[in-house]
Amino acid sequence: MAKKPKLTGKSCDVDLVVYGSSGLDSISTPFGKVKDALGGSGIFGSMAASFFSKTGLVTTVGIDFPPKYLSLLEKFGIDTLGISKIGKTFRWEGKYEFDMNEAKTIKINNDVLEKKHLPIPESYLAARFLFLGAADPENQARVLKQFPGRFVCADTKKFWIENKRAKVLRVFKSVDLMVINDAEARELTGEVSLVRAGKKLLKLGPHYVVVKKGEHGALLFYGGSIFVAPGYPLETVKDPTGAGDSFAGAMMGYLAKKNKTDEKTVRRAVICGSAVASFNTEDFSVNQLLKINNKDIEERYGIFQEIRKF
Amino acid sequence: MAKKPKLTGKSCDVDLVVYGSSGLDSISTPFGKVKDALGGSGIFGSMAASFFSKTGLVTTVGIDFPPKYLSLLEKFGIDTLGISKIGKTFRWEGKYEFDMNEAKTIKINNDVLEKKHLPIPESYLAARFLFLGAADPENQARVLKQFPGRFVCADTKKFWIENKRAKVLRVFKSVDLMVINDAEARELTGEVSLVRAGKKLLKLGPHYVVVKKGEHGALLFYGGSIFVAPGYPLETVKDPTGAGDSFAGAMMGYLAKKNKTDEKTVRRAVICGSAVASFNTEDFSVNQLLKINNKDIEERYGIFQEIRKF
Repeated sequence: MAKKPKLTGKSCDVDLVVYGSSGLDSISTPFGKVKDALGGSGIFGSMAASFFSKTGLVTTVGIDFPPKYLSLLEKFGIDTLGISKIGKTFRWEGKYEFDMNEAKTIKINNDVLEKKHLPIPESYLAARFLFLGAADPENQARVLKQFPGRFVCADTKKFWIENKRAKVLRVFKSVDLMVINDAEARELTGEVSLVRAGKKLLKLGPHYVVVKKGEHGALLFYGGSIFVAPGYPLETVKDPTGAGDSFAGAMMGYLAKKNKTDEKTVRRAVICGSAVASFNTEDFSVNQLLKINNKDIEERYGIFQEIRKF
Repeated sequence: MAKKPKLTGKSCDVDLVVYGSSGLDSISTPFGKVKDALGGSGIFGSMAASFFSKTGLVTTVGIDFPPKYLSLLEKFGIDTLGISKIGKTFRWEGKYEFDMNEAKTIKINNDVLEKKHLPIPESYLAARFLFLGAADPENQARVLKQFPGRFVCADTKKFWIENKRAKVLRVFKSVDLMVINDAEARELTGEVSLVRAGKKLLKLGPHYVVVKKGEHGALLFYGGSIFVAPGYPLETVKDPTGAGDSFAGAMMGYLAKKNKTDEKTVRRAVICGSAVASFNTEDFSVNQLLKINNKDIEERYGIFQEIRKF
């Protein structure tokens, strides 16, 4: 039997808690490849959020996880007290074809995150914002239960929709903001029209629903309204891995920074998410996130204002 | 040998000339089907343009073309002097699968439009705006030559890119505004990124390039700028046939009405095109275009302003 997860890292109060996977990705796209690069929804989500807010990451890494990556996260300003070390590091090997739309999984090992009920540092429990990255909905529900009354955003993925549909629906029922990609929204609702799908998802319970459309931007649904966020007009897309996670992470980081969740602020958060996600795809792994700063994000936010004017 | 095409219909001065195909479409989608319904790039383009400007249609129909459709076009306010009657009516049979992205052609007969050098009514030659629907680029070039110094928009399609690539490029070199869909833009330029594709297409010669992205809206490129037009958030898409044609037709109709072609006006024209195209897809054939009026289009234009605000 594996050892009980231990809490490592430094402690401090956080505005936002990100729960998600961490691992090593080996990816090839028509524009290059990387081996054992930093990846996982928790990594992309917390790094993206860190541009805006003090973020704590609840995740697990293997005892073989390269220490350089842990110190990289700390240097990035992420609170790493919530990182548990246990078993073997999660590894994923994927490939994108020319259209870069969907990764083909070549090899994957079991994600320890899905097996364990991870301990959450006490200092995190006061955070007002929580982002649940795509994970086993039963584990998402366990984390969710520890943050009653907070503003919670949850993501999911095809695998969980197909294998634990009822549990996925139950999580979405209890969160404030649900993020999902276009194909998953269609699958979960049986609707071709993303507008119908979004409206159906709103009825599940969340106050806001964001449908991510990759290069085509995102749709935000709330009440009777829709916000159509354009995709950032990118010239270079090297690797879309993690773009959805950094989108949601940056969105939640922005909301936590503003400490507001009204419609106007959420619209702006969607644009911040799109800006950070666009950087994410310009290089492999977290490479581009390591190179940019808040001024770069603000500049892209300004371009988003220009490209939609008529 | 077929008889020389004869000019029929009533004459009057026109602001915009639309050159494109007319025919009868038999279409099935997951939401229903129609048989021998009015279709063709010339029909969709001229009807969409008519909401904004006096439009003359240069096309050909067979001697078997239902007279009710000709009177329908006249009642719609389209100048029909440029419609030649010759041979058999162009017929297309197509099918859309669940994703509604691309039609599968089941049956097609030769388009007479592609065989003939159609006569253009003298009264049309003073028009300041010309829209060349997707057609044999050699025929597009012949029509183009008769409208020197006008503001010309041209469309094309996969078939012509694959069979007469050099001729397609030559037409685009000589026009002011080029419209093309995303897949065609990628094919013509060899670029995955639509932004790179759009910029490459600008270098061919046109002052404006519009890349149509179906439900995801459109990208307008000019100089160093990009306008990202959202797709209208539709709940019902019954039949996307002709949406690209009505997009371009409405865009050109709006420009002809304003008699301006500056960047601000072209951005607005793209939104008008998107509004009319969105109606087009809500029902089969031209059914929805027959039901709407300018107030409906203005209302949708207003919604386009709301959904993009942040």
